[in-house]
Amino acid sequence: MKTQTGTTTIATDYLWFETKERKELLNITDHLEALVEKSGISDGFCLVSAMHITAGIWVNDNEPGLWQDLQTWLEELAPAKPDYLHHKTGEDNADAHLKRTLLHHQTILPITEGKLDLGPWEQVFYAEFDGQRRKRVVVKIYGISKG
Amino acid sequence: MKTQTGTTTIATDYLWFETKERKELLNITDHLEALVEKSGISDGFCLVSAMHITAGIWVNDNEPGLWQDLQTWLEELAPAKPDYLHHKTGEDNADAHLKRTLLHHQTILPITEGKLDLGPWEQVFYAEFDGQRRKRVVVKIYGISKG
Amino acid sequence: MKTQTGTTTIATDYLWFETKERKELLNITDHLEALVEKSGISDGFCLVSAMHITAGIWVNDNEPGLWQDLQTWLEELAPAKPDYLHHKTGEDNADAHLKRTLLHHQTILPITEGKLDLGPWEQVFYAEFDGQRRKRVVVKIYGISKG
Repeated sequence: MKTQTGTTTIATDYLWFETKERKELLNITDHLEALVEKSGISDGFCLVSAMHITAGIWVNDNEPGLWQDLQTWLEELAPAKPDYLHHKTGEDNADAHLKRTLLHHQTILPITEGKLDLGPWEQVFYAEFDGQRRKRVVVKIYGISKG
Repeated sequence: MKTQTGTTTIATDYLWFETKERKELLNITDHLEALVEKSGISDGFCLVSAMHITAGIWVNDNEPGLWQDLQTWLEELAPAKPDYLHHKTGEDNADAHLKRTLLHHQTILPITEGKLDLGPWEQVFYAEFDGQRRKRVVVKIYGISKG
Repeated sequence: MKTQTGTTTIATDYLWFETKERKELLNITDHLEALVEKSGISDGFCLVSAMHITAGIWVNDNEPGLWQDLQTWLEELAPAKPDYLHHKTGEDNADAHLKRTLLHHQTILPITEGKLDLGPWEQVFYAEFDGQRRKRVVVKIYGISKG
């Protein structure tokens, strides 16, 4: 077990996305790595949380076949269809709320020695289920600074 | 990117719920805002975690039609039915364990400038699937104090 | 509300697992309690995150009947079957990626008075869906030390 002690630093930033398709999966790992680098935090955590309730965060494989499998599967478990009660408000995106729920909308990434401490295949995706408009993800990095 | 540095404060509290119905969705956003205010923490995180294994936490829309859609959907994916092995112990709530699993049982909310840093529609719900008795949620707020 | 203030300590460790079966559920609560004890942290958080993308973390009941119910249910919602696009890469484990997604791959456990602050029935499980090889879980403990 490695242990570090120090003063806390918290860095806050936001990523904005506007996808071309209504449903899209974006690999944001490099964005997050850049923010961790910029924060100067060497040991800590990075919260990544979709701020709009029809988008989620997925930590999984950088493999396009699996992305398609994921979308097919989400569509089976939480299908787009007209007859949701939510649609009586004028919305048509109830399935997107449920898909976000299945994936979960956030992750906490560990930071060790100044980098995201991910497994060999872990990549971080922004999962949009009702896009084509500007939507935001909060990134909060928390830990002990280099020094 | 905004960065703050300081000494860490951690505040711990518990919320108790006893729902009238067996399944209920309670908007607890105001409770959490009040705890963040009371903690004096200006930048950090708020962990909200259901301590009983038949309840979850859901971050989504404050729209009653969608709540009903969610309950219908959870009932389809994780139905209440007699034939779970868990029921051989005398319990009858295996579906509640699975529903908690689908929703996830916790969330981490970012705190920025002394307030929950939520998206425009994000509200936090306690999701009870086997209520009518006293159950608890731990709230741990962590960050840098005002000053 | 109890509040503590102090200097931050972060402890990092890794747990390795090699399950005998391809799918297995391991109760790792005692391992985590031991790491919290070793870290000397009295108030804070413990991130537990599966670093391989075919495994997850589940916080639920220490009841073998329910474990079997969970596995049956996951198999219904995310079945092992040949016809995933991911399998064109030579893999045969797309269902394991989806099962990890359903369970979620991580949890944050609160630490209060030097111990995991879990509910009366909460236990932490490593959920392996494509095992029989060495795989890793990162544990990062974060908070204020005893003093």
